[in-house]
Amino acid sequence: MNYPTTIKNLIECYKKLPGIGEKTAERYALATIELEEEIIELFSKSLKNIKTKIRRCNKCNNLSENELCDICCDSSRDSKMICVVEQPKNVILFEKVGSYNGKYHVLDGLISPLDGINPEQIKLNLLIKRIKEEKIKEVIIAVKPSIEGETTALYIKKLLEGLDITVSKIAHGVPIGAEMEYIDSLTLEMALEDRKTISNNT
Amino acid sequence: MNYPTTIKNLIECYKKLPGIGEKTAERYALATIELEEEIIELFSKSLKNIKTKIRRCNKCNNLSENELCDICCDSSRDSKMICVVEQPKNVILFEKVGSYNGKYHVLDGLISPLDGINPEQIKLNLLIKRIKEEKIKEVIIAVKPSIEGETTALYIKKLLEGLDITVSKIAHGVPIGAEMEYIDSLTLEMALEDRKTISNNT
Repeated sequence: MNYPTTIKNLIECYKKLPGIGEKTAERYALATIELEEEIIELFSKSLKNIKTKIRRCNKCNNLSENELCDICCDSSRDSKMICVVEQPKNVILFEKVGSYNGKYHVLDGLISPLDGINPEQIKLNLLIKRIKEEKIKEVIIAVKPSIEGETTALYIKKLLEGLDITVSKIAHGVPIGAEMEYIDSLTLEMALEDRKTISNNT
Repeated sequence: MNYPTTIKNLIECYKKLPGIGEKTAERYALATIELEEEIIELFSKSLKNIKTKIRRCNKCNNLSENELCDICCDSSRDSKMICVVEQPKNVILFEKVGSYNGKYHVLDGLISPLDGINPEQIKLNLLIKRIKEEKIKEVIIAVKPSIEGETTALYIKKLLEGLDITVSKIAHGVPIGAEMEYIDSLTLEMALEDRKTISNNT
């Protein structure tokens, strides 16, 4: 004896999500039975739509329901500035901050020779082409501070050498509110190196 | 700017599952986009079916796709023995063990005066009626060892007093493979009290 087929199938589906094992999938499937009817309907419909309605923006590679995403269509934003991120969800992160008013470009990951991911695979050529075509003035690289992130940043910098474009990288350092003793030494090293003069009495 | 509507809806749905917050729901929704088409289809279909196809067994209250669940229909099982559990998933747990060959009865929770859950709400009367009608010989109470579990067990015992029925409770004690120092004192007390004589030289 086991669960009825419908529940068994649901468990299998939940198990496909990242970090979900047998027990958690079982818990979610049983909890699903208790959900309100309209939530279940919305859930089922959204899943159906996700493959048909969701696509990548033709310009910036962000998730979109149209050929161009909302940000690319927004003429009130500074179109001479591009913030390069690794994943669509990073766009949302920066949007939540609210202080950035330029455009974005979403890569398909980061360069990682160890994993066999090269510049072509993350479509860096599309980014460079876009930068040249749209006469971008500043490219802000906002990828995570890791070997892959640094490699990707260096590569982009190199591809844009000789052009009249400012290439910058978001600051790395001690996060606000952090306890100093929990910060790793590489971050501290970077924070020291990128120190800001706040007073100069000479 | 935020996620496209379809993704936003999906995030809201994932958030309805137990223990899932904004960040995890977002992660699941974005991971869903990457799932294979047939998984998405199965997922969507199973969700649709869960409200229409899944019901409770008329006899034992277990989850079922038919009027009677597979276990109740199985004539090879001992029909004079009932194992009382709190939730449908506990039936699966015992079935995985494989050594129990009787029937089950699934309660709608446990008696909890503090939460205002009384015997009527967990449909104990249906269990008692079933025990009498089916001339059950042994009732094994397999609910969790907590105040609610003990209260429910005591209540069932009382309701069956005077009838020729053995009422038993699964053993509580130190689990196999456990490190003694991590066992709480209540469990140790129970383990001591329920000790088994393994040799008697008198």
